[in-house]
Amino acid sequence: MTDNKMALSAVMPSPDQDIELRELPLPELEEGSALLKVELSEVCGTDVHLQRGKLAGVPYPIIPGHVSVGVLEKIHGQIFDVHGEPFHEGDRVTFLDVHETCHQCWHCMVAKASTRCPHRKVYGITYGVEDGLTGGWSEYIYIKPGVHCIRLDGVSSETYMAGGCSLPTAIHAVERADIAFGDTVLILGSGPVGLSAVAFANLRGASTILCIGAPTDRLKHAKLMGASDTLDFTKHTESDRLDWVRSITHGRGADVTIECTGAPQAVSQAMRFARDAGRVVIVGQYTDHGEVPFNPHLDLNKKHLDVRGCWGSDYSHFHRAIDMLRTERGQALWSTIKLDRYTLSQANDALSAVAEARAIKAIIVPSSANSD
Amino acid sequence: MTDNKMALSAVMPSPDQDIELRELPLPELEEGSALLKVELSEVCGTDVHLQRGKLAGVPYPIIPGHVSVGVLEKIHGQIFDVHGEPFHEGDRVTFLDVHETCHQCWHCMVAKASTRCPHRKVYGITYGVEDGLTGGWSEYIYIKPGVHCIRLDGVSSETYMAGGCSLPTAIHAVERADIAFGDTVLILGSGPVGLSAVAFANLRGASTILCIGAPTDRLKHAKLMGASDTLDFTKHTESDRLDWVRSITHGRGADVTIECTGAPQAVSQAMRFARDAGRVVIVGQYTDHGEVPFNPHLDLNKKHLDVRGCWGSDYSHFHRAIDMLRTERGQALWSTIKLDRYTLSQANDALSAVAEARAIKAIIVPSSANSD
Amino acid sequence: MTDNKMALSAVMPSPDQDIELRELPLPELEEGSALLKVELSEVCGTDVHLQRGKLAGVPYPIIPGHVSVGVLEKIHGQIFDVHGEPFHEGDRVTFLDVHETCHQCWHCMVAKASTRCPHRKVYGITYGVEDGLTGGWSEYIYIKPGVHCIRLDGVSSETYMAGGCSLPTAIHAVERADIAFGDTVLILGSGPVGLSAVAFANLRGASTILCIGAPTDRLKHAKLMGASDTLDFTKHTESDRLDWVRSITHGRGADVTIECTGAPQAVSQAMRFARDAGRVVIVGQYTDHGEVPFNPHLDLNKKHLDVRGCWGSDYSHFHRAIDMLRTERGQALWSTIKLDRYTLSQANDALSAVAEARAIKAIIVPSSANSD
Amino acid sequence: MTDNKMALSAVMPSPDQDIELRELPLPELEEGSALLKVELSEVCGTDVHLQRGKLAGVPYPIIPGHVSVGVLEKIHGQIFDVHGEPFHEGDRVTFLDVHETCHQCWHCMVAKASTRCPHRKVYGITYGVEDGLTGGWSEYIYIKPGVHCIRLDGVSSETYMAGGCSLPTAIHAVERADIAFGDTVLILGSGPVGLSAVAFANLRGASTILCIGAPTDRLKHAKLMGASDTLDFTKHTESDRLDWVRSITHGRGADVTIECTGAPQAVSQAMRFARDAGRVVIVGQYTDHGEVPFNPHLDLNKKHLDVRGCWGSDYSHFHRAIDMLRTERGQALWSTIKLDRYTLSQANDALSAVAEARAIKAIIVPSSANSD
Repeated sequence: MTDNKMALSAVMPSPDQDIELRELPLPELEEGSALLKVELSEVCGTDVHLQRGKLAGVPYPIIPGHVSVGVLEKIHGQIFDVHGEPFHEGDRVTFLDVHETCHQCWHCMVAKASTRCPHRKVYGITYGVEDGLTGGWSEYIYIKPGVHCIRLDGVSSETYMAGGCSLPTAIHAVERADIAFGDTVLILGSGPVGLSAVAFANLRGASTILCIGAPTDRLKHAKLMGASDTLDFTKHTESDRLDWVRSITHGRGADVTIECTGAPQAVSQAMRFARDAGRVVIVGQYTDHGEVPFNPHLDLNKKHLDVRGCWGSDYSHFHRAIDMLRTERGQALWSTIKLDRYTLSQANDALSAVAEARAIKAIIVPSSANSD
Repeated sequence: MTDNKMALSAVMPSPDQDIELRELPLPELEEGSALLKVELSEVCGTDVHLQRGKLAGVPYPIIPGHVSVGVLEKIHGQIFDVHGEPFHEGDRVTFLDVHETCHQCWHCMVAKASTRCPHRKVYGITYGVEDGLTGGWSEYIYIKPGVHCIRLDGVSSETYMAGGCSLPTAIHAVERADIAFGDTVLILGSGPVGLSAVAFANLRGASTILCIGAPTDRLKHAKLMGASDTLDFTKHTESDRLDWVRSITHGRGADVTIECTGAPQAVSQAMRFARDAGRVVIVGQYTDHGEVPFNPHLDLNKKHLDVRGCWGSDYSHFHRAIDMLRTERGQALWSTIKLDRYTLSQANDALSAVAEARAIKAIIVPSSANSD
Repeated sequence: MTDNKMALSAVMPSPDQDIELRELPLPELEEGSALLKVELSEVCGTDVHLQRGKLAGVPYPIIPGHVSVGVLEKIHGQIFDVHGEPFHEGDRVTFLDVHETCHQCWHCMVAKASTRCPHRKVYGITYGVEDGLTGGWSEYIYIKPGVHCIRLDGVSSETYMAGGCSLPTAIHAVERADIAFGDTVLILGSGPVGLSAVAFANLRGASTILCIGAPTDRLKHAKLMGASDTLDFTKHTESDRLDWVRSITHGRGADVTIECTGAPQAVSQAMRFARDAGRVVIVGQYTDHGEVPFNPHLDLNKKHLDVRGCWGSDYSHFHRAIDMLRTERGQALWSTIKLDRYTLSQANDALSAVAEARAIKAIIVPSSANSD
Repeated sequence: MTDNKMALSAVMPSPDQDIELRELPLPELEEGSALLKVELSEVCGTDVHLQRGKLAGVPYPIIPGHVSVGVLEKIHGQIFDVHGEPFHEGDRVTFLDVHETCHQCWHCMVAKASTRCPHRKVYGITYGVEDGLTGGWSEYIYIKPGVHCIRLDGVSSETYMAGGCSLPTAIHAVERADIAFGDTVLILGSGPVGLSAVAFANLRGASTILCIGAPTDRLKHAKLMGASDTLDFTKHTESDRLDWVRSITHGRGADVTIECTGAPQAVSQAMRFARDAGRVVIVGQYTDHGEVPFNPHLDLNKKHLDVRGCWGSDYSHFHRAIDMLRTERGQALWSTIKLDRYTLSQANDALSAVAEARAIKAIIVPSSANSD
């Protein structure tokens, strides 16, 4: 138990500024809330976007870190998992970063599209320092009442963080892809979301999984996650890539293409790489990089194609992804990804490593911060 | 019964040439085939595209006319409807223009996407004069073995032709739109497909149906088919149109948008006019008009949008559309559309009337040809 | 505005006892709650079951009446509809009787099956007098914080109550039936749920709607709601009924059968009346009447049948049903049902009328109670 | 190539009679047909039913054996796979036993339920000796024009036959079960279909797979195919089995239950073992064993359960199952099942071994027949 009243935190003051360390007060816990001592917190591509000011509505200064694992150090009153089991102090848990989904608005209640609920808040992104310890790059996180925690029984913290926020994102995309047994699934992108998408496609019953990405070490990783074959997009033209996909699919294109790149031109390529009457899921376009042209006759209407945007995730994705991690195969797949560890004071280095794709998965270890 | 051996037919010799009348020989009927004496045959926007050479793989010279109604004058052997009931000479029928779907290829048998079967042929489009009387702008049509005929009990020829080939096209699009009870459905386009889409959305349980199109008389027709409100796109900017849709949908956009225009820019508009987590069906892009830009972040990924190309139709769409026409409400809706009748020798005028949107529905009446 | 502090209420003291009138105190309103002055409240088959003690977990004494319409007389703080529009005192509204769906449990969050959330409470059924004015057979209802109200703009109170609690129940069943355009839909039962199911099937694009029920006047009503044909089950054996359905469906059986009877034997009949590869929805078995035999080979496996139980409803069903009522056709269909009105002191008579199927729709009008 | 004109075949003369060997003439091949030299042919539970006369419409005498693998010895003209690739003499193939699906009837064309097409014929079951060499317990099989063959590249004949006809049956059932990532799937039955269902559930993304069956060696096999845990139904009451399932599922029951037993009472158990709003697939009831009682309120309606009969399979199931067998994991799973081999003259012994559950998978090896 912390004996002082402050938590060392890495704060992003505003876009285009360095992360700085601050001592922030521990919260007064209200009924149904808890204090989580952070063991590991993720450094994600979104954090790079945050530092570059690419996301709208971010209340800087913020404590980044939307996916974290730690130990419940103090609970005020009782908090429960979805099975109705109470959490205890000392439990090792993670929690769904998305909170305050309202369950009152039209999107939640009529459209049943809660990932578009306008009231959602996200730890490490849309909560700011003003809201308290609401990001993972800190010794402690304030678990607000109603936040969904989940125990990590049977999953090591390292294996869980190897997936991190790509787990709910990728499982949602793969769920939305409606993969059928024996399908050929093409993943565009070999970043964390692309790699997890490869693994989930593998677990879902695809018989052939192709990955187009870069650099070489990530493509090697894609094979460890279950890719049948890979292609380095920096070494092949779009036309070559299309030929490659068609050569593997009797000339037809992929049954399912999942775009996880972040590059707008990958969206129209995804449509061209798909077979007639196939499905394309777009999950890589989380920031605005402008417009891209496509041919609605050839790439969409005549193809009888389904193109599905995929935004965010809800508790079910988070829960089911962790259930998959608990399986022997899930553990084997994600434990192939090694973590690059950084202290709180090395947060700027961690962001650079992610921005430059030097690390597959960079992680902040707040407890090592004191030793700096 | 015809006492001579020839049928007067309107032939499209090649792109950009006038239709010309030819006397063509009646076929020798083989087992399971029939001869249909044509009562009415449709002049459709696709026929205008055919004359302009906009479709690939057309074996000119052809007899246009893919949707027709007539009387079975002669049957060789037996032919049956899907219920196993035999047809008799004298039955008034229509037939599915698409034939030779193979039921042997991967698209038919594994993907179950028979509208993308590469072996399909279409009366009036991909059959040529060399194949015999395979288009409706003729006194007679040769009904090949295996062609799906359907009786028109309870539906007048006029009401059926008022829908014509827009019936299976629009019912397929509306089926693919997954309309829920109470949805707001936005139809882009007020041509035959747009009008039939309005009617089917109406029959499907949408509570609000909006139509953006032109000209004024077609928008009036959209209201007769069930549109709650309409907007003339020639008189409002895209921004005004978006404001209009949002003003009716609590600021959210349409639950479902069905694009039936033929204009590529309508595709990206359809995406912008849709609500978050809504559905967009693209059914108007039957010919290639080049590329159009869109924003994959704002219009697709962040919106969590479903965009669905819709190509062709199969027998089920044809059958179900006619079943809907048999209902009291179906009859009431489509009988609001009046036919503009043309003889075979007026086929060029009919094409002009369609090309210039002067007629909502132009029809060739081959039996009146002789009196010219 | 009420000038005293008490509300006259019809209380069901315990099973098998008469309803009695009581004066109950008006609640202290807490933030986000409201007081509804009741205009009309439904007497439903469930209320008969409640009086007979057929439902488990009912906290007698209770104020029955789960579906009501009235005027918001007093609001404490602010309450909003799902569009974010505030309610005002004087607004005429109804509200979703189901409350306290938790949005925290496994059923809500992982299975997305909120109608099976174990924390749900229902006005007029699982709230008791101890919980305050929580049933509609009363001058006032206490609208707890978070209860979903909805305005009835464009719908008369009478038309809404003509549907009453059958609206969300039947729309849910029809939604779950996946009716396709042109389907033949068979409704078993001609009580309120059966009649509303006929109407929703009609609005959904079925081309033929059959209803088997009794007595004669209800079957006449089924035709007003859109049934193509009806059969009185009291006058025909099961075998005759099957022959009747098959004679209308080319020998195949109904595409969709929706069971709304309450009689267990109707469940196995529903399976037999369905066509191969059809769908059966079971929505009439709200109380336990014991076991019934069926043949799993003939009636289920060989038939490749889908049988779907349908329990309760969520806010979306309630919202969408009222959106359908706002349409011209919705109004026309439900306004064919006339209300039988009873004062609070006539509640026992109202229950008898429903139990004996003398009234299609019995309604309590609390404001007329004082004049007794 | 065979140099004589006769094929030794094991013929089932009529129900309740021993199999007898007959020399039958090789067929004259017509255009698009072929002669398959049989390597291995399955002995399936259905063959036991055939011998006991439990199936309707069987044209005895027949040559049993509906799933076989062999070598194309002679092809008349050309035959193609679904990719349009021609088969060559010498290719090792299997073929879909179901033939003559008509693609003309209402079930095929409107309902898209081709497994209920009344025109289907099945090799080894509904073809008789009169139709030629139409069963696999023979040196040769006559591959009629239009029969769907498939190459077994990358799959050994042994591994393929280890699955045999349980492959399309089980993959269809698992496809129909709509398994979600992380689901708990309960398989009732540990015969060939049950074991393959365990494997496909494993490949589909279930995180927990339970199997209730018998005897012990089959339950051991279920674990090799991916079952997390098993229970011997002969040693536990139904109540104990229910407790066991609930103890593993937080008291809720299985997300998905797939019944593969053949025992009617397993159908109502499957409904009780399922969780609220779960799915139950019934695939074990291929013969008529009479009625069984269930409680429609408790087991179906209140549970909001989906119960889905699953009959037969189509080409897609066959194709996709073999694609799964080609994967490394597919091969690993099914290669755990060892074949018990029998000559043609030992066919009666093979049937007994299957009837008494002594063999998991009995196989006829026709080429070894001559050495008897």
